[in-house]
Amino acid sequence: MPANDQERLSRQIAFILEIDRLKHVLRRSLTGSPGERRRENSAEHSWHLALMAVLLAEHANGAIDVSRVVKMVLVHDLVEIDAGDSYCYDDRAALDKEAREQCAAERIFALLPEDQALEMRGLWDDFEARQTPEAKFANAIDRLQPVMLNHYSQGQAWRENGVTRDRVIARNRPIEEGSAGLWAFARGLIEDAVKKGYLEK
Amino acid sequence: MPANDQERLSRQIAFILEIDRLKHVLRRSLTGSPGERRRENSAEHSWHLALMAVLLAEHANGAIDVSRVVKMVLVHDLVEIDAGDSYCYDDRAALDKEAREQCAAERIFALLPEDQALEMRGLWDDFEARQTPEAKFANAIDRLQPVMLNHYSQGQAWRENGVTRDRVIARNRPIEEGSAGLWAFARGLIEDAVKKGYLEK
Repeated sequence: MPANDQERLSRQIAFILEIDRLKHVLRRSLTGSPGERRRENSAEHSWHLALMAVLLAEHANGAIDVSRVVKMVLVHDLVEIDAGDSYCYDDRAALDKEAREQCAAERIFALLPEDQALEMRGLWDDFEARQTPEAKFANAIDRLQPVMLNHYSQGQAWRENGVTRDRVIARNRPIEEGSAGLWAFARGLIEDAVKKGYLEK
Repeated sequence: MPANDQERLSRQIAFILEIDRLKHVLRRSLTGSPGERRRENSAEHSWHLALMAVLLAEHANGAIDVSRVVKMVLVHDLVEIDAGDSYCYDDRAALDKEAREQCAAERIFALLPEDQALEMRGLWDDFEARQTPEAKFANAIDRLQPVMLNHYSQGQAWRENGVTRDRVIARNRPIEEGSAGLWAFARGLIEDAVKKGYLEK
């Protein structure tokens, strides 16, 4: 392998080892059946979203480039390696979330060769801006997945964090921008959660 | 949403909830820096491979459809939900691994609407047969990743399981079928691991 290619591969490998750390960033959502229930980490969450993107793409409001959505959800949480996971119902964490995540993006993507750093950064910026059809759909499944896990775990994380129905609806309404069908489904889950006592009214 | 679409979405959602269980299938490879080191699970492993596929595709021996490789690695371990993870250096587990995994594939993919069940099963069969350029490359990174994690953790899993250099080389030689460049890199890691005492000669 020529020296330039070696240098390129070294940077790719350094990035790949660095992102191993995302497996240790814990979210509030719970995973698993009652006996093995634990907090989900952001790496396995991203894997779950990637498969959801492949399987649910047909429910997007318009035509989308599915492989771009998949890449977007694979990288969308990498900034949490430095910035940590900000719980979506934590107003204090939200205050400086953007600044923390911008710094993280600067450092982490710069580990890669420049062309790939730009590509990955572009995917993340696109996801955050939520303007393109792909970003709207990626954000939709990123919100739908915790609603599903919360419903499945009888609302344990919602109840532990004092989250109410109105806040869940406000947080998840952007699902509709990506998929009206999935938003209707999420609404059904939320109302069912209230009915069953998983979520406070 | 028409009743047919509802039924279709219900099956997709049932599958998406079922595969949450992959987050609880533990591998032998370790993840994390010394203070937080733990066994890796197959869901976060699959996420890691998906990003490796995107970033390392240029090192494949020939032209590959990267988005197919990504989908392949996202589903390649799903059968472990029923069949468990078979450690690659465990000869006894290897004896009935194929039969266990075939049964698992029958059950798990059948949760999906039929067209998607066929697509996902096709990806898994392709990965297992290791004949197409995409499958060869997907298998290459599935082998390279644990070598990287083992080297990074000073060979802890290799040492705990009494694995020797010759077995690591035999297990990982198929990397070459997917990427001569990555195989050269893996060989370098393995020899370095022997030199540093991470791996027995």
